[in-house]
Amino acid sequence: MKKDYIFTPGPTPVPLEVGLAQVKMVHHRSPDFGEMLGRVLEGLKYVFQTENEVLMFASSGTGAMEGAVANCFSPGDTVVVFSGGKFGERFAEISRAYRLNVIEIKYEWGETADPALLEKTVEENPDIKGVMLTHSETSTGVVNDVEVFGRIVSETGAVFIVDAISSLGAVEFRTDDWKIDVAVSGSQKALMTPPGIAFAAVSEKAWNMIADSKSPNYYFDFNATRKSQSKNPPQTPYTPAITVIQALEKAIEMIKDEGLDRILERHRRLALASQAAVEALGLNFVAHDRSNAFVTTSIWSPDGINSGDIVKLMRNKFGVFIAGGQGKLKGEIFRLGHVGFFDEFDIVVQVSALEMALSELGYDFKAGSGVSAALRVLSG
Amino acid sequence: MKKDYIFTPGPTPVPLEVGLAQVKMVHHRSPDFGEMLGRVLEGLKYVFQTENEVLMFASSGTGAMEGAVANCFSPGDTVVVFSGGKFGERFAEISRAYRLNVIEIKYEWGETADPALLEKTVEENPDIKGVMLTHSETSTGVVNDVEVFGRIVSETGAVFIVDAISSLGAVEFRTDDWKIDVAVSGSQKALMTPPGIAFAAVSEKAWNMIADSKSPNYYFDFNATRKSQSKNPPQTPYTPAITVIQALEKAIEMIKDEGLDRILERHRRLALASQAAVEALGLNFVAHDRSNAFVTTSIWSPDGINSGDIVKLMRNKFGVFIAGGQGKLKGEIFRLGHVGFFDEFDIVVQVSALEMALSELGYDFKAGSGVSAALRVLSG
Repeated sequence: MKKDYIFTPGPTPVPLEVGLAQVKMVHHRSPDFGEMLGRVLEGLKYVFQTENEVLMFASSGTGAMEGAVANCFSPGDTVVVFSGGKFGERFAEISRAYRLNVIEIKYEWGETADPALLEKTVEENPDIKGVMLTHSETSTGVVNDVEVFGRIVSETGAVFIVDAISSLGAVEFRTDDWKIDVAVSGSQKALMTPPGIAFAAVSEKAWNMIADSKSPNYYFDFNATRKSQSKNPPQTPYTPAITVIQALEKAIEMIKDEGLDRILERHRRLALASQAAVEALGLNFVAHDRSNAFVTTSIWSPDGINSGDIVKLMRNKFGVFIAGGQGKLKGEIFRLGHVGFFDEFDIVVQVSALEMALSELGYDFKAGSGVSAALRVLSG
Repeated sequence: MKKDYIFTPGPTPVPLEVGLAQVKMVHHRSPDFGEMLGRVLEGLKYVFQTENEVLMFASSGTGAMEGAVANCFSPGDTVVVFSGGKFGERFAEISRAYRLNVIEIKYEWGETADPALLEKTVEENPDIKGVMLTHSETSTGVVNDVEVFGRIVSETGAVFIVDAISSLGAVEFRTDDWKIDVAVSGSQKALMTPPGIAFAAVSEKAWNMIADSKSPNYYFDFNATRKSQSKNPPQTPYTPAITVIQALEKAIEMIKDEGLDRILERHRRLALASQAAVEALGLNFVAHDRSNAFVTTSIWSPDGINSGDIVKLMRNKFGVFIAGGQGKLKGEIFRLGHVGFFDEFDIVVQVSALEMALSELGYDFKAGSGVSAALRVLSG
């Protein structure tokens, strides 16, 4: 007998009530569905901390990232992309696919994006139309200071596009206060819902730019989606992912019940417990700055051990599914998850399984030291 | 107490086993998921009747339609779009969004697309790069003769793109035998799965054209999806709609158990029963040619009755959800569904509810005549 534990940074564990909400199918042109969609869209505004309209798409988060680029810009437009991980790179790839003139500011994987570089770049390039930043770079565990970037971009004519796919609901995220023009996210991270729907919260500044865009797009057309969603009750231009939206409705109910502040505090506590365990085990973090790196704890594999072996052993022998490294960190790092439907005991199980795997792979440490360190934080 | 009956042409009713398959979440980078995805992709080849690779996307069918256009063509390319309903129009809209030179052959809503017009058009325009046809035009109930069109297109350098969203698994559909280069479909019609995933079966001829395309695209990039799906076990380039794929796996199992031939025969029988009921009630069909119009039965509302009132009454008073008209047929027609998870008694219920609604709206007919006519077909 082996239980399954999904401790990945996304998709994250789904509460049974949320999973069950997918079973009954309704039709998306029924009034009941429209009213439910309205509640979900309102709930998303709360999670995004925004008065802007939140658009919904039947896609993964990457679709909404493409939507942001395809709707805001025209071929030849100059954009700045901060890229210090797999998801920053994705923004640059999408922008190049749309023939934008991409100033890609590469920073070391594990490092935090430097706002001084943005200041310098916007000064040197007054024609910049957009700035793209990954809030939580899931591939490294780094959480960037979106607020500071937003302040700089807001003083220019450019729109500020933020990938909040893994950060939304995981750490503090303030769309309006931080002057984010397009905030993109998805259902399968801290919103503890299955994957299949993505979001974009769009500011007036962005809508003005969208009106001038000449890039082709159809399925992710922000105007078409806005038009359908503004009906009473709201609709979607194309068939929505009905059952996933039903799941999200249930998840948002749970999020409202717990309250965003309490959720963020829970995530912080679980992350600190994970960090304490990692330190006690004598392992090293990928993120240089851990002061807000509470979405994913990314860890260098010990010398001589391929991180893939840790992940496989934990999964195949103990049923505990954590994530390995992505892109150029494949084999080098592994990542512990703790946002969404996670409690204290999930950290205890996760660290226990990690200890058992490390022990089996010959890593030298004092058994129980990781779990003990985690428990000290969790009991505090 | 009011039971809910979804009798719409899509999303269609979902069997409980299929709905329940969404409850348990797995991670999409697990070997188990990859193996399941492999089984689903193989099952889709059976449903598509193809040896071509079937690509899967987390989107509704419209996303895969856009993918076909964005991957095959470059701005300025000349394409022919047959448009005799809302979904034919959509292909033309997408093609124009991608700055193609669109020869839109409009035919009357309710009429069947005329292959002679295609022959004439390809003769006059030897530079045509693509031909787009809706197999089952859900907005009118018309089912076009894809085979004849495929024969004509195959003799040119153009690719043949077919919207099989509502026809796949509903009526005969032979991707390879009918020389279809890109066949697009979705999960929520005859595949009796919730919406949220879409497919494109792509031929070698299409892959060759895709290699030369200069249109921007990223999320629906056919090459990226092909590359991920060709891994062992298969993967997806971005987070897939995991729970909907699990549902589809169950649905494909059921489809294989029943067998495609038997399924098509069942759909034909249910459609003929619906048609018999409509005739007995003295109502008129939207589709001029009903010899293969077995996906949706589209019916003109009786004089003086807005079809929306029929739909609303059936839904609100009896819980029976059929579809009204779309686009310019809104208020004019209503549509009975009978593909996917439908049996004889669903037709009996549907026609009974229709009779009750028509009676309440003052339409003059002999009570029970529709149901009796349907039963005569079903008992035959």
